[in-house]
Amino acid sequence: MQPKTRIDVAILGATGAVGQRFIQLLDGHPWFRVAEVVASDRSAGKPYAEAARWVLTGNPPADVANLIVLPLDAPLNSPIVLSALPTDVAKTLEPELAARGHVVCSNTSSHRMAVDVPLLIPEVNADHAGLIDVQRRNRGWTTGALVTTPNCTSTPVVMALAPLVQFGIRQLNVVSLQAVSGAGYPGVASMDIFDNVVPYIGGEEEKVETEPLKMLGAFTGERIDWLTTAISAACNRVPVLDGHIVCLSVALDQKQSLDAIRDAWTSYRGHESVRELPSAADPILIYTDLPDRPQPRRDRDAVHGMATTIGRLRECPLLDVKFVALAHNTIRGAAGGAILNAELLVARGYVQGVVLPTASEQYA
Amino acid sequence: MQPKTRIDVAILGATGAVGQRFIQLLDGHPWFRVAEVVASDRSAGKPYAEAARWVLTGNPPADVANLIVLPLDAPLNSPIVLSALPTDVAKTLEPELAARGHVVCSNTSSHRMAVDVPLLIPEVNADHAGLIDVQRRNRGWTTGALVTTPNCTSTPVVMALAPLVQFGIRQLNVVSLQAVSGAGYPGVASMDIFDNVVPYIGGEEEKVETEPLKMLGAFTGERIDWLTTAISAACNRVPVLDGHIVCLSVALDQKQSLDAIRDAWTSYRGHESVRELPSAADPILIYTDLPDRPQPRRDRDAVHGMATTIGRLRECPLLDVKFVALAHNTIRGAAGGAILNAELLVARGYVQGVVLPTASEQYA
Amino acid sequence: MQPKTRIDVAILGATGAVGQRFIQLLDGHPWFRVAEVVASDRSAGKPYAEAARWVLTGNPPADVANLIVLPLDAPLNSPIVLSALPTDVAKTLEPELAARGHVVCSNTSSHRMAVDVPLLIPEVNADHAGLIDVQRRNRGWTTGALVTTPNCTSTPVVMALAPLVQFGIRQLNVVSLQAVSGAGYPGVASMDIFDNVVPYIGGEEEKVETEPLKMLGAFTGERIDWLTTAISAACNRVPVLDGHIVCLSVALDQKQSLDAIRDAWTSYRGHESVRELPSAADPILIYTDLPDRPQPRRDRDAVHGMATTIGRLRECPLLDVKFVALAHNTIRGAAGGAILNAELLVARGYVQGVVLPTASEQYA
Amino acid sequence: MQPKTRIDVAILGATGAVGQRFIQLLDGHPWFRVAEVVASDRSAGKPYAEAARWVLTGNPPADVANLIVLPLDAPLNSPIVLSALPTDVAKTLEPELAARGHVVCSNTSSHRMAVDVPLLIPEVNADHAGLIDVQRRNRGWTTGALVTTPNCTSTPVVMALAPLVQFGIRQLNVVSLQAVSGAGYPGVASMDIFDNVVPYIGGEEEKVETEPLKMLGAFTGERIDWLTTAISAACNRVPVLDGHIVCLSVALDQKQSLDAIRDAWTSYRGHESVRELPSAADPILIYTDLPDRPQPRRDRDAVHGMATTIGRLRECPLLDVKFVALAHNTIRGAAGGAILNAELLVARGYVQGVVLPTASEQYA
Repeated sequence: MQPKTRIDVAILGATGAVGQRFIQLLDGHPWFRVAEVVASDRSAGKPYAEAARWVLTGNPPADVANLIVLPLDAPLNSPIVLSALPTDVAKTLEPELAARGHVVCSNTSSHRMAVDVPLLIPEVNADHAGLIDVQRRNRGWTTGALVTTPNCTSTPVVMALAPLVQFGIRQLNVVSLQAVSGAGYPGVASMDIFDNVVPYIGGEEEKVETEPLKMLGAFTGERIDWLTTAISAACNRVPVLDGHIVCLSVALDQKQSLDAIRDAWTSYRGHESVRELPSAADPILIYTDLPDRPQPRRDRDAVHGMATTIGRLRECPLLDVKFVALAHNTIRGAAGGAILNAELLVARGYVQGVVLPTASEQYA
Repeated sequence: MQPKTRIDVAILGATGAVGQRFIQLLDGHPWFRVAEVVASDRSAGKPYAEAARWVLTGNPPADVANLIVLPLDAPLNSPIVLSALPTDVAKTLEPELAARGHVVCSNTSSHRMAVDVPLLIPEVNADHAGLIDVQRRNRGWTTGALVTTPNCTSTPVVMALAPLVQFGIRQLNVVSLQAVSGAGYPGVASMDIFDNVVPYIGGEEEKVETEPLKMLGAFTGERIDWLTTAISAACNRVPVLDGHIVCLSVALDQKQSLDAIRDAWTSYRGHESVRELPSAADPILIYTDLPDRPQPRRDRDAVHGMATTIGRLRECPLLDVKFVALAHNTIRGAAGGAILNAELLVARGYVQGVVLPTASEQYA
Repeated sequence: MQPKTRIDVAILGATGAVGQRFIQLLDGHPWFRVAEVVASDRSAGKPYAEAARWVLTGNPPADVANLIVLPLDAPLNSPIVLSALPTDVAKTLEPELAARGHVVCSNTSSHRMAVDVPLLIPEVNADHAGLIDVQRRNRGWTTGALVTTPNCTSTPVVMALAPLVQFGIRQLNVVSLQAVSGAGYPGVASMDIFDNVVPYIGGEEEKVETEPLKMLGAFTGERIDWLTTAISAACNRVPVLDGHIVCLSVALDQKQSLDAIRDAWTSYRGHESVRELPSAADPILIYTDLPDRPQPRRDRDAVHGMATTIGRLRECPLLDVKFVALAHNTIRGAAGGAILNAELLVARGYVQGVVLPTASEQYA
Repeated sequence: MQPKTRIDVAILGATGAVGQRFIQLLDGHPWFRVAEVVASDRSAGKPYAEAARWVLTGNPPADVANLIVLPLDAPLNSPIVLSALPTDVAKTLEPELAARGHVVCSNTSSHRMAVDVPLLIPEVNADHAGLIDVQRRNRGWTTGALVTTPNCTSTPVVMALAPLVQFGIRQLNVVSLQAVSGAGYPGVASMDIFDNVVPYIGGEEEKVETEPLKMLGAFTGERIDWLTTAISAACNRVPVLDGHIVCLSVALDQKQSLDAIRDAWTSYRGHESVRELPSAADPILIYTDLPDRPQPRRDRDAVHGMATTIGRLRECPLLDVKFVALAHNTIRGAAGGAILNAELLVARGYVQGVVLPTASEQYA
């Protein structure tokens, strides 16, 4: 299953840290082609390689390096728009682009909690994409749509909990140890984080205490029925480049043995239709028996940075069980997640004018 | 209050990371003088400066630099012995030295949980020192004694909770972010912890889940009645040099407002008799209103590394309140704590042959 | 030797990283009192503690915390002005303040190379302060003056070379490994320097290749006769918080044995008159025989951060000898150096209205 | 050009940091298959995954994970032996294995400077492999051979200088900033290198001052005529995981413009026969115009970690030009280099019993 020609995508906030990840991950992507790069006025008009201070490994891909950066108000041609805009800009610009007919896959928090905006980790809640139909009806959009990825710390929380929802998740305690890249670029000053921990990230705990409830909730065809789990989160910044760790404790309605929980993880395959998408994680979850894993540097790149790695499952003297989960915050928790959302919307026919092969063509 | 002459102390495990902290902290100490340094056979017979690879700032104090390192089985003359021995060696050697008449203040875990061994943070539970009388009776020791400091992560937990015991601590969740110096020297390999977190420290969670129960318990005159709080701990190593952070959630028997809890901390003075000891923290606890503190690098040295700094008090959606506490792991949580224990035992008359001034002399 | 009352000083650029070091170092200073704090419009009007994001250890001293930050154009009352302004602002404001009668001790590069502006490390070239008389004559200033500290990397270079000037320094190669605090705050982004080296610091190599020539030159009474040494510098940023290391190779006109060079360092006492100044380093230079020193973390704080530590002296197959030197970049190489300059100018009578005690008063 | 079946290789010192890199790089290698893993007695007899504490990203490849570790004295079947042994063990064991008929490609320093042992960077001096014929004659070996890779810091030095040898390299100054992985595992203690630089690496400067002379020398058919360049080296350990930076200054016999030097690098193709080897770098050298590159984290993985990246070419006030070069120390400078050496020896027919395809087969 693959579109007959590569689909043009526009990157909003293309010069920032997540914007760069979009460009890095789309280099050689089988379905998508970076056709437009959009950034603030300071960058607009310059070739991308000059406008962006590339902060990832290596250098920007050659074809993107020469694209001229467009201003935020430029009309766009790409049917798909991937957004890593600052929240204030995203607030108005993303719905405008959707209204103009673009399918906007946003990595920004501005619209995540809107009742008619899907908050997606496709392997976990691909069916929430159906909320787009409600959204289009509500907002009078025809070909446009707006979907979002969760916060980078909510991501491993939701992925690790998805297979446990069947047992009833009554209570959840989350303490995160988050990498500096989560704050974008320039982001965290080295003088603040060298030889240090900052036990506070503005707005983060509120997101981790609410986003999972929406994401793990049920889509009724009209709305999402949120989970009612009580969640407490404490978020810390640590001197790590990439990869967010969460220490989780969970109380379940139906008690389970450690083996049963481990089995739930290792047998978890997620939505079948998602497995064929180019950026989907397979496996989605990796359980490691090594006593001191997962670790950011050693596990963040598992399954091209899209898997969540879980370890250290043990009884919890307060709730029922505790364990550790890890995901790459700028791949799985940001750019990679938004690209997978775009793939899902293509596969489900939400991107107008994209021709998917018939089954016979596909397997010819 | 001060002994008439400086008291000789011996340092066991003098070449290790905590042994070095002992020597650094005792440089210029008003009561104590490092008279004997003891280490493994590999070091014995060499001048200290040659035997020890000094890992702290600067260089070893000149008077200690020239002391010849004694072997573990050397007879010692110092009435006070400060021990930073490995647990296996400590297991037998520490009681032997106590039996020979030395007052042993240990930083090792080997004897912490023995029913007749005080586990002390003097500001918090100086009265537990009375257990020495039971210990001497039990073991037939006359002038000798054995007391211990808690684990470096238990330390800020116990200090932050001490003023809350009055409200009844029903449940406690602890997630730690611990510095590399907690593992001694050479300890954590840079290849393991650069750009990384290790979400496991062998044996640590068990200690954090039990030591506070003993320390915050009541001394009956014969034994310690442990607290019965349910504690869950998850311990992580982070790329920080010194200073352990704990993210705490607490459920109280008697609910308190945030203000009442903050007041309990800021008004906490601990045992009155302890305040005059040279190494005692005063204040014991510092509450900071800054939104992103305490931080290891910026707060670990508060009150010469002996205070615990607390911040981020807020409601907890699961238990009652949550907050962050921090203490210097090799000062407050190790060498400084053991020195303060020794000071306490001197002040309470447990160190034979040390003449304290009379009140009239003291205030002359 | 000490003024009869503490002298008011104003701090320009008080909220920045070096401004904070000024305030930290002046806390409890025997001669000076921070009376005025000046910063950009964004900060002006707020209490210092609120305007400044304190990036050093602990918190701002209480008396400064409550000072209201003054705007850059505020008239100042303090006879002494310590400046950590950005270069563009310093360019015009520093001479203006000197013209208005203030003695300006600047840490900025804007005026360092002006022919009538002393570039001072008092222990090394206190006599260059005599250039102030030329400056006042040139510029028509009466009580005002402008003196500067060198670049933070030039500092250990000049200090280590000062005792070798007598042998004739023909060639000098410098490769630096510089701490992030040298770039101010927020300065170096953690995403740029974690697990990384940046082998470039804008404008730095030019400074290191010229400043030492002026500083080690001879004051003729009218001007500085520069040294004519050929210097080559390569500057690198490394993931270290404080402390700049320089790897030096030197060719001398008169060849010396390693012992003779070591002796030149260890016997170096600098200008006699400087030794009594409160912030002067004594010793100025520390030579360490330890094979792997100096190291930033272990040696930067030597002699309250004002000494330069030297080690690893050995033959150089290209030039004559090579060695390693280290100084604390924000103390010796910035704020501490500028404070010492101010002390020197007080002692030499360049600060009007400050009454120094007579010799008989001093030793009463 | 590829052997008809994959060739068995044995890894000596398989559990160490470089041993692990061998295994990681050989996973999926088109010519070689890890058939035997050899380590010290402590590891022998255990499955590899259990014996080795894996310190790289992810986990050991599944097929190697289950190999039983062989003791050092085990007879080996693999025609090719890749060695990452400690120097003392390598000193006797490597020649013994060569005497028994194995082609030993060593990463150890023990035999690098022996007159009949090639010290190879194939792109640069593949012709030195001819010294094997001399070696076999000298030592009476028939099918066995011993070749070595250079020190990890010599590597970028030699690669960057290779295209400049034509101009006559008269003088060379090298200051290195080396990653912690160069010291193996556990290697550098985090307490030694966090927030620090160690300006000393035992034995390193001697290697960097001699190895390039041999490697860049000419093979006469009987021996290597060394270069006579005067080299001075200063070596520093910095808090970086992988990737060694060298700051180089060079004096040339025939002065060149900066452009001519840059052209020499960008047009450098090395030995033609080497380009087809699976691990060869192509390009061998990358010159970057970005002002602040090369950087370890951003450039070490260029061309699968086998290229050397050069930047910051500029005039040197002392010698002629200065610049910065970088290579991955455990790939290019260790395991990857030794694998490429093995490939070279296969291609040149030095590995008995390996059948290379004929040209007609190859291009069929």
